[in-house]
Amino acid sequence: MVTDLTSETKQELLRVAEALADAARKAILPYFRADGLTADNKLSEGFDPVTEGDRAAERAMRDLLAVLRPKDTVLGEEFGLTAGESGLTWVLDPIDGTRAFLSGTPTWGVLIAVGDDNGPQLGVIDQPYIGERFIGGFGEARVDGPHGTRRLQTRAPRDLADAILFTTFPEVGTPQEGQAFQRLSNEVKLTRFGLDCYAYGLVAAGQIDLVVEAGLQAYDIQGPMAVIEAAGGIVTNWEGGPVHQGGRVVAAANRQIHAAALAFLSCP
Amino acid sequence: MVTDLTSETKQELLRVAEALADAARKAILPYFRADGLTADNKLSEGFDPVTEGDRAAERAMRDLLAVLRPKDTVLGEEFGLTAGESGLTWVLDPIDGTRAFLSGTPTWGVLIAVGDDNGPQLGVIDQPYIGERFIGGFGEARVDGPHGTRRLQTRAPRDLADAILFTTFPEVGTPQEGQAFQRLSNEVKLTRFGLDCYAYGLVAAGQIDLVVEAGLQAYDIQGPMAVIEAAGGIVTNWEGGPVHQGGRVVAAANRQIHAAALAFLSCP
Repeated sequence: MVTDLTSETKQELLRVAEALADAARKAILPYFRADGLTADNKLSEGFDPVTEGDRAAERAMRDLLAVLRPKDTVLGEEFGLTAGESGLTWVLDPIDGTRAFLSGTPTWGVLIAVGDDNGPQLGVIDQPYIGERFIGGFGEARVDGPHGTRRLQTRAPRDLADAILFTTFPEVGTPQEGQAFQRLSNEVKLTRFGLDCYAYGLVAAGQIDLVVEAGLQAYDIQGPMAVIEAAGGIVTNWEGGPVHQGGRVVAAANRQIHAAALAFLSCP
Repeated sequence: MVTDLTSETKQELLRVAEALADAARKAILPYFRADGLTADNKLSEGFDPVTEGDRAAERAMRDLLAVLRPKDTVLGEEFGLTAGESGLTWVLDPIDGTRAFLSGTPTWGVLIAVGDDNGPQLGVIDQPYIGERFIGGFGEARVDGPHGTRRLQTRAPRDLADAILFTTFPEVGTPQEGQAFQRLSNEVKLTRFGLDCYAYGLVAAGQIDLVVEAGLQAYDIQGPMAVIEAAGGIVTNWEGGPVHQGGRVVAAANRQIHAAALAFLSCP
């Protein structure tokens, strides 16, 4: 466990996280909507742009980490675990939202986190096509994108009846998980679907109140969790416990809306 | 009815359509995610950025048309019908996807079409935050955006079992409409939700095969229809008839996938 990072180390980790996101952007963008470019090309048969982009981006990030942070552990969606000795772990998901990616939708993202066994301390959600990056941790909480740079700050408390809730798939997870989600959905003003990791950025940016999903892996949630926590929000499992190893996630703008949501998600 | 437009008129209409989209972008962007900027500001109470942005953009487009095309009819979502005498009608939806807009999601759009009683001949789907514009008609079929300029070309025919289907709301429309959609959804490889007008751009760009929606107005569909038709696709109602006045829409990449989808949507 790493509890005391120096200010210099924190600044270095911030720089490395942004360098990783830059490298992933460059690696992935040529593959996004690439099938559209080659739709009439027989050579394109068997070409899987999502898999190719996923692997190219994780390779680019791992190559950078091998140079810049050789003693850190790396856990990536595509190439698994590379053990280190520093006590710090980088958790990488080169393309979160592969179904969005293969549909051409600009709401997939590159997810990056660094932290220790207690969870992520710094996170990035990067959307390469829009050129938008949500970053949170070590004193930073900002989005850089088409509107320039803005501070990330989650929403103030409001009633569930005024809240906006997002999830990716209408079925959410198991039938039981879907029913729990539906109980919560019945209480809110607006439920929207289909955004993958981008929805977590919207919580951090103060645009929406809740994201609820099930069946997530550590690499799906650690980046978004750090961004939302740095912006004032709270991310747990449906029972209110830690979720940085994955599972059923509720990401909330503040403690009040989090508690209100848990009451509907965790009842038997 | 206007059947014979000169080449000069077509070029002028293309320029005017782009000028309208530019004006709408400029008018709307200050309102997008503006509630996030003022979340802690008591003065923001009662401020409705969607309504304000919607009206500002339609006003800006109507002001331009009054100067550039004073004899054309204008039909807009916010301010209704202004009759003209040229036989050409501009159909404007300043913010299609108001629920996406108020959630901060970058998949709402400005919709612009111009045509006659037979339907739109030129259309624009503009996403101001991404800076992406789909335009189709009068010989044009292109998208200008983060990837530069690319030709729009819908997908080649494929089986429903390999197709990607989009709609905005999981319930689609009435219970009967929802059941028809579900019959079709059961046949395709992937069904995705929540994109509003942006999904039509993805059909035109050759990324997805089908968009199916119900309860649309003329201003919701005329811009997307013209873009998709210019890119090689087909847009009708669920019975295969004209839909430029609104209703239940199926937008398809090609005649084959269109016919395959109709078989599931229009059966009793």
